[in-house]
Amino acid sequence: MRIALDGMGGDRAPNVVVAGALQALGDLDDDTLILFGDEPVLRELLGPAQIWEKAIRIEHAPEVIGMDEQPVDALRRKRHSSIAVMAKHAAEQQVDVTISAGNTGAYVAACQMRLRPLPGVLRPGIMVVFPTFGGPVTVCDVGANIAPKPAHLYQYALMASLYAREVLSIENPSVGLISIGQEDAKGNELVRKTNQLLRDDERIRFVGNVETRDFLNRPADVIVCDGFVGNVILKLTEGLAEGLFKSIKRELSLEDPEFVHRIQPIIDRMYARHDYSEYGGAPLLGVDGTCIICHGSSDERAIKNAILRCRDQVKLGINKKIAAELQKVAVDDGEIS
Amino acid sequence: MRIALDGMGGDRAPNVVVAGALQALGDLDDDTLILFGDEPVLRELLGPAQIWEKAIRIEHAPEVIGMDEQPVDALRRKRHSSIAVMAKHAAEQQVDVTISAGNTGAYVAACQMRLRPLPGVLRPGIMVVFPTFGGPVTVCDVGANIAPKPAHLYQYALMASLYAREVLSIENPSVGLISIGQEDAKGNELVRKTNQLLRDDERIRFVGNVETRDFLNRPADVIVCDGFVGNVILKLTEGLAEGLFKSIKRELSLEDPEFVHRIQPIIDRMYARHDYSEYGGAPLLGVDGTCIICHGSSDERAIKNAILRCRDQVKLGINKKIAAELQKVAVDDGEIS
Repeated sequence: MRIALDGMGGDRAPNVVVAGALQALGDLDDDTLILFGDEPVLRELLGPAQIWEKAIRIEHAPEVIGMDEQPVDALRRKRHSSIAVMAKHAAEQQVDVTISAGNTGAYVAACQMRLRPLPGVLRPGIMVVFPTFGGPVTVCDVGANIAPKPAHLYQYALMASLYAREVLSIENPSVGLISIGQEDAKGNELVRKTNQLLRDDERIRFVGNVETRDFLNRPADVIVCDGFVGNVILKLTEGLAEGLFKSIKRELSLEDPEFVHRIQPIIDRMYARHDYSEYGGAPLLGVDGTCIICHGSSDERAIKNAILRCRDQVKLGINKKIAAELQKVAVDDGEIS
Repeated sequence: MRIALDGMGGDRAPNVVVAGALQALGDLDDDTLILFGDEPVLRELLGPAQIWEKAIRIEHAPEVIGMDEQPVDALRRKRHSSIAVMAKHAAEQQVDVTISAGNTGAYVAACQMRLRPLPGVLRPGIMVVFPTFGGPVTVCDVGANIAPKPAHLYQYALMASLYAREVLSIENPSVGLISIGQEDAKGNELVRKTNQLLRDDERIRFVGNVETRDFLNRPADVIVCDGFVGNVILKLTEGLAEGLFKSIKRELSLEDPEFVHRIQPIIDRMYARHDYSEYGGAPLLGVDGTCIICHGSSDERAIKNAILRCRDQVKLGINKKIAAELQKVAVDDGEIS
């Protein structure tokens, strides 16, 4: 498999990305890793060629899109950026998968501009696997589509269910819809109409509306929501977990500094168990290609996991299955007919 | 002051509500507490009359709206419910404040139906004070208005700023707008238009869009968002904090049961410091009256705090100040003209 990796994307790129690539080498089977970015810089970081040249190839892309640049504008100005060149390679089918921990907006925009949607798909969505206390919860969308129509959320339910079944081996996954009350009548217009669409499709095991209060208890295997709300949930969960652990440690150190040393391994273990980079990056579901989005703060392990895990999605033929599933329902833009 | 309290509202009503009322007695000055609900039941719980009869009066309301009942439907069917009768008393100015820990939807609907909006206010919003690691953050709206227009969020910024200044004594409070990126161009249409309105008003110290990742670090004194998103944030924060603490205790008990005993007081202390019932209930800002919403899970202390704190809002004349402030800007429904 030809796995494209954005060498310049991420808070600590290119160092961490190159380190992650090198860590993945041992488990790569026959796969080739293609690193996109500034060739001299990447070559220097990779070190002695004999270690990596059998499995890694560099594709020169001299420009870098910064983490905070305005996505569409940056893509227009920086045609030779790692993200732009990588997406072009994906469109020309010179690579099978693309991975980036860079500017999410720019990466998603590049993938959406360069790759067609899968047949039947109205709008791609970003899917994240959250490791909650009750097990993994698959959430879609977390930021690709911030003004969705009911039919988009309905399709996210179908796509994410399929992913949960095929990749996470969850048989007959249940689906919940984020709302502000469990009753069907609760929520805004988008939620009420989506609720109806999900209820009406027998292929979906819909458990109804779910509230974020129950989120960590895993109210369903798959959860759908609009991209704005999904992004709010994703970032609040991150910020809150980090903040609470920090606060606990501060309190403990006031009490007894010795105690902090004893509790640190426990916190580390909890973090590891609830670390969503364990599941690799977040796929952009619904495009005719395999695009994996990594967190900007990804460390070597997260990059390595994304590289190794993304292969399942290709091998299991998720895209073919999505297309087959979604084409069974005729859709126009916004309504199920 | 005449403070109306819904005796039947809350997960553990009427017991906890009555207990909270009795706890508040000592600090009540000349105020009268009017308990709405089933008179024989309330009387029995209140105990010997000589303890309370100087400060508490009972207003009989034989029906109860359940926590999960459909709000508008329940209000229509149960005209003699504590919520309905209490709102009627507020409309007739027989009480100065109303407080309920009952069905939030029904209580808010009753207040909105019975009380007029303040002059100039387009749509009332529920405001909550979150005690974050960095200090209190005032958030509006957390569930009253789930399909707001930009002008509504703009007014929430004005009203909540005024509340933060007058009640929380925060001089010149800063205002942030929840979005999925800090740049002005990020977010859905509602956020982009609201961003512009907030930027254009010199009375508002607007710090721009804020992300939920930074929420606990208190990115601004006041945060505005649509009611759906605010409700998602409120409930996720609650669920996550509870879940994380539970998980920490479980991990610790596996390691060493002795640990749990040592960490419990620390967790309790953190909870107390970040307990939003410290700030009393959540006001419904923008109605011509003072309506305080308590959490369904409120304990005696939360009820007591709501009773004692609500008086500031009346004494400080918040409503008059809101009306004066909002009438300076001519608004029609949805746009600032």
